[in-house]
Amino acid sequence: MAVDVVVMAAGKGTRMKSRIPKVLHRVGGRPMIEHVIATAQALGARRTIVITGHGAEEVEGFLRASAQGAAPAFVRQEPQLGTGHAVQQVVPVLPDDGIALILNGDVPLIRPQTLQALVEKCGGQRLALLTVDMADPTGYGRIVRSGDAVQAIVEHKDATHAQRDIREVYTGFMAVPERKLKDWLARLKNDNAQGEYYLTDIVAFAVADGCEVVAAKAGEQVEVDGVNSPLQLADLERAFQLRQARALMEQGVRLADPARFDLRGELQCAQDVEIDVNCVFEGKVSLGDGVRIGPNCVIANASIAAGAVIHAFTHIDGEKLGVQVGEGALVGPFARLRPGAKLGAEVHIGNFVEVKNSTMAKGAKANHLAYLGDAQVGERVNYGAGSITANYDGANKHKTIIEADVHVGSNCVLVAPVTIAAGGTVGAGSVVNKDTKTGALTVARAKQASIEGWNRPKKK
Amino acid sequence: MAVDVVVMAAGKGTRMKSRIPKVLHRVGGRPMIEHVIATAQALGARRTIVITGHGAEEVEGFLRASAQGAAPAFVRQEPQLGTGHAVQQVVPVLPDDGIALILNGDVPLIRPQTLQALVEKCGGQRLALLTVDMADPTGYGRIVRSGDAVQAIVEHKDATHAQRDIREVYTGFMAVPERKLKDWLARLKNDNAQGEYYLTDIVAFAVADGCEVVAAKAGEQVEVDGVNSPLQLADLERAFQLRQARALMEQGVRLADPARFDLRGELQCAQDVEIDVNCVFEGKVSLGDGVRIGPNCVIANASIAAGAVIHAFTHIDGEKLGVQVGEGALVGPFARLRPGAKLGAEVHIGNFVEVKNSTMAKGAKANHLAYLGDAQVGERVNYGAGSITANYDGANKHKTIIEADVHVGSNCVLVAPVTIAAGGTVGAGSVVNKDTKTGALTVARAKQASIEGWNRPKKK
Amino acid sequence: MAVDVVVMAAGKGTRMKSRIPKVLHRVGGRPMIEHVIATAQALGARRTIVITGHGAEEVEGFLRASAQGAAPAFVRQEPQLGTGHAVQQVVPVLPDDGIALILNGDVPLIRPQTLQALVEKCGGQRLALLTVDMADPTGYGRIVRSGDAVQAIVEHKDATHAQRDIREVYTGFMAVPERKLKDWLARLKNDNAQGEYYLTDIVAFAVADGCEVVAAKAGEQVEVDGVNSPLQLADLERAFQLRQARALMEQGVRLADPARFDLRGELQCAQDVEIDVNCVFEGKVSLGDGVRIGPNCVIANASIAAGAVIHAFTHIDGEKLGVQVGEGALVGPFARLRPGAKLGAEVHIGNFVEVKNSTMAKGAKANHLAYLGDAQVGERVNYGAGSITANYDGANKHKTIIEADVHVGSNCVLVAPVTIAAGGTVGAGSVVNKDTKTGALTVARAKQASIEGWNRPKKK
Repeated sequence: MAVDVVVMAAGKGTRMKSRIPKVLHRVGGRPMIEHVIATAQALGARRTIVITGHGAEEVEGFLRASAQGAAPAFVRQEPQLGTGHAVQQVVPVLPDDGIALILNGDVPLIRPQTLQALVEKCGGQRLALLTVDMADPTGYGRIVRSGDAVQAIVEHKDATHAQRDIREVYTGFMAVPERKLKDWLARLKNDNAQGEYYLTDIVAFAVADGCEVVAAKAGEQVEVDGVNSPLQLADLERAFQLRQARALMEQGVRLADPARFDLRGELQCAQDVEIDVNCVFEGKVSLGDGVRIGPNCVIANASIAAGAVIHAFTHIDGEKLGVQVGEGALVGPFARLRPGAKLGAEVHIGNFVEVKNSTMAKGAKANHLAYLGDAQVGERVNYGAGSITANYDGANKHKTIIEADVHVGSNCVLVAPVTIAAGGTVGAGSVVNKDTKTGALTVARAKQASIEGWNRPKKK
Repeated sequence: MAVDVVVMAAGKGTRMKSRIPKVLHRVGGRPMIEHVIATAQALGARRTIVITGHGAEEVEGFLRASAQGAAPAFVRQEPQLGTGHAVQQVVPVLPDDGIALILNGDVPLIRPQTLQALVEKCGGQRLALLTVDMADPTGYGRIVRSGDAVQAIVEHKDATHAQRDIREVYTGFMAVPERKLKDWLARLKNDNAQGEYYLTDIVAFAVADGCEVVAAKAGEQVEVDGVNSPLQLADLERAFQLRQARALMEQGVRLADPARFDLRGELQCAQDVEIDVNCVFEGKVSLGDGVRIGPNCVIANASIAAGAVIHAFTHIDGEKLGVQVGEGALVGPFARLRPGAKLGAEVHIGNFVEVKNSTMAKGAKANHLAYLGDAQVGERVNYGAGSITANYDGANKHKTIIEADVHVGSNCVLVAPVTIAAGGTVGAGSVVNKDTKTGALTVARAKQASIEGWNRPKKK
Repeated sequence: MAVDVVVMAAGKGTRMKSRIPKVLHRVGGRPMIEHVIATAQALGARRTIVITGHGAEEVEGFLRASAQGAAPAFVRQEPQLGTGHAVQQVVPVLPDDGIALILNGDVPLIRPQTLQALVEKCGGQRLALLTVDMADPTGYGRIVRSGDAVQAIVEHKDATHAQRDIREVYTGFMAVPERKLKDWLARLKNDNAQGEYYLTDIVAFAVADGCEVVAAKAGEQVEVDGVNSPLQLADLERAFQLRQARALMEQGVRLADPARFDLRGELQCAQDVEIDVNCVFEGKVSLGDGVRIGPNCVIANASIAAGAVIHAFTHIDGEKLGVQVGEGALVGPFARLRPGAKLGAEVHIGNFVEVKNSTMAKGAKANHLAYLGDAQVGERVNYGAGSITANYDGANKHKTIIEADVHVGSNCVLVAPVTIAAGGTVGAGSVVNKDTKTGALTVARAKQASIEGWNRPKKK
């Protein structure tokens, strides 16, 4: 039976003390609601309907822009009169013939297999509640069962002594036959102290109607934890990171410290990859066979080939263009690779070197304090310490071509557009703005002069 | 009733294995005894009297130098014959008409509200003990109560089986009516195995005198934990950092990992501030609205305005002069801002760039491998890769002025004192030591020459 | 009685998902089997015999190459038919007159004192098993005792209800009189479901023979934890690092965060050493009195003298040549010291500076964006920002000598081999390839020229 996902995302999140709508706060670099929608899509949901309210335009705008495939449908809940009222807004756009899976946009770590089990429990006929066993359930609504069947959700304040010993609580997620859901939603009342419509009231309707109420249990508390404050956000961030770290280790990745590993995106690793402490990965990163990442690296949007070694304190961010590091290349420490850096096999990039939008062919080296921007560097080139490609004339960017086997001395400036022809040498300290000839030594250097007995300035 | 604070700070701390007196070891960047005194001052204490002994001169010297307002009074305890003996030294300088609040200089995380409750329990009439519930009280003196009243502190070795089940223990802190304290101190005896005078013996005197003995409980163990070893120091450091992290998160600050956050000073944050993993803050730092701090930054004594982004691996330390980062500025990765760096709005400071005692006006940029020292940089200036202000002639520092809209090429040296007039351009690789004219192109460059068929050195 | 150590190291470690044999995976930078062998050697073992199988050649090759003193003996177990079968392979090379101490090559954190106690329990006469109390022993073989004597190891599946309550389990380690061991090994049968020979079967033989079976308990679970997956490897890595951190703190070293400290080698610390968060130490490192290491440093194979301060983000690796940092030197932030860097007292190395195979005498400074390679730098030299020693002509390395009191200006290149004589000055931007005279000012600089009314390129 088709599953339609309903995501509640109208809440304000006052305790976040933020201008950003709560469900757009990020876990693992991704807004919480995106996690929820991605999980729903992993289930093969037919429709996804998001109930917005506070910050509705921002939430809807974000989800429309980030949607892969069809964007979700949106309904607005204004004003906000409780969870039942929220779901009532969905009725006009909700089909009748499927299962409504009701999720929270601020509960990002729910797993697909947990939702799958919940949907199966519903089976299109039963009201299925997602529950969890809590170490300390104080304050939560207890699940009162008779055998497998759920009889009621009893609020903490209304619970008997015996009921308070129940550790199984309701999580806020449910899977409901849509036709029944619509019937029950129509019967909700707000005759309570808060004057709100509670979705959980449908449990009593189901029991009264003789509809079976069942429960599926989440595997771990963290799956159903919601975020109402920066502290809770940080807690879930750590839980999420540990989950990812464990998954990578199960694939064989060796992490020096799973508690000091952050992945905000996707990390693909071949065999025998080692990642040292305190590294951060963002966007899409792939690491080839035997790649080693040193401590304190930040790596985003990059593809690093087999056998490459990224030393400590390396910063790589390919943004949209990506960065490629070739087989057996050595990068860092203190290197920075920017968008469009494409390093061939066995390239060496050393300390305090920045490479941007440049191609370096096999075996090329830039080992010390250098800048390569908009350059095309040939095989075996040695690019000297302190040398710079002046790629920007203050208005436009130009290209520097350094052909194979060129040696560029220290503290040179190659003023683009310029070509250093194959096998050439550029003497230290030269500013080169005209193309050079194959195999030539090019120098632009003033004569060394000496003033003897010179009196150095004195301290005033 | 007035409160006078007595801080015991005479202990040696042998297990610290340090030349530094124990109470001067730091938690959160601040000597432990400073935390205690600051907490006492937060209570509005009338007098603060510190009992010194080991390292007395160093401790007293430090506290005199660091005192804000009146320095505490000091009494020496030499030799050290127990806690009772320590407090006996205070008698000559202690008033009679208030409450003596007795604290430990090596218990830094005590909270003002806990001490306030203790003082209120005393009320100028009762002997009030600070206690705490311990998970494992083995070895500690148990609080034997009869209803609310404390009957005795029973040492672990003297405790009955039933008493050993008591989890409430004495912490070493007490609040005592001063007149009574003096009376009881005079009655202390040292007829015990160690030949020491124990302050806790006054509990028996109080009971004998019919003076009510009461207890206030500390909220958490860490408040009353003392430091006797580097391990305990590290434990309290972490507890302190976590306490600070939580307080910031409650204000709305988003920390990527509260367990990897260090603050040794004061951090003021406006709304929607995000701080990535493994950052260290020292001194006074303020972060404006929406400021984002990347991973692995070290930031001290700086004011960072709204919307600025500090990328990974940025080191900022303003020391006494401070550092200012303007609205929407982008700094790092691998940038270093030193004392007196004042960046205007939308300034960009990129990788491997150092800025010291320099002002950069709105929109100025120094994106790559550069040094700016003692410089005044105008709006929209582009300061090229590898360029240096030679501000130091080996004896004195001089100023470089780069007026608005100047473009400085790559690998230039501006030899101060020098002014590059507005709108001017400095060609790559130029050393400029004479002022330039408005809008002029200034070049100091040797002619490019070529030697064809040059034989490069061969490997020996 | 002599102790011969038998190390089981034939297992495949499928769950490691690695090409590296399991026992060569590293904890604290050192293959697990090296930890085990080093611990055995600390006991004064007579012989060490390693049973190899999967990856035998790699394991044996590694241990032969890394052996200090005599390499262990090796026997091969092929195919692998159980733990009893493994030890059977040792019989031909095992003496008869001592105690065989049987260890696992993938259980790296066992302590010498624990093994010592196990050997003493054996006493050359008894079968001594190493056991541990587990919080949750489910799945493990329980130790069934009668008073002090062990009666049997009962597998979980065979255990009675009462036996399942036993928390003492067998660890896989034992100490056995060699003559008896050989007798028992000969009697092992493989008439079980797996068709394997189990070493634990010898317990029954011992009981049957009237040989006393005794047990020694490991002090903590982590001592006997084995590694079968990257997750377990990471867990032991953290346990090992915490063990090292605690040992250093007990010596008086102050670690800002023991959970963010990594030592993969040996760290010797004098008094009052402070190490900030997130530092990594490798190889042999010694830190003198009062040395302070800032946050996020990576330090390997270096000797840092008293009073030196290493600021944040400093990378030091001496590899085989070592690095020396003199008394009171200041290094970093963002400094890199490479093999053969020898800094004298009070040397300053600042940001974005790299030093390789160079000696710097007392008080020399290189504070900004510079490279010193193969250089000999005299006392009080000031080496300017952006300056480079061009030590490599593309084929060979040459030496640069900068004598005492020289000032090298900014963005200079010293083309080796070259000597800058004492007291000399090199003007900014100069390329110097001829030796200079004492006290002389040396300049190689083009004349500053100006083109007024120059039209800067326009954005296309």
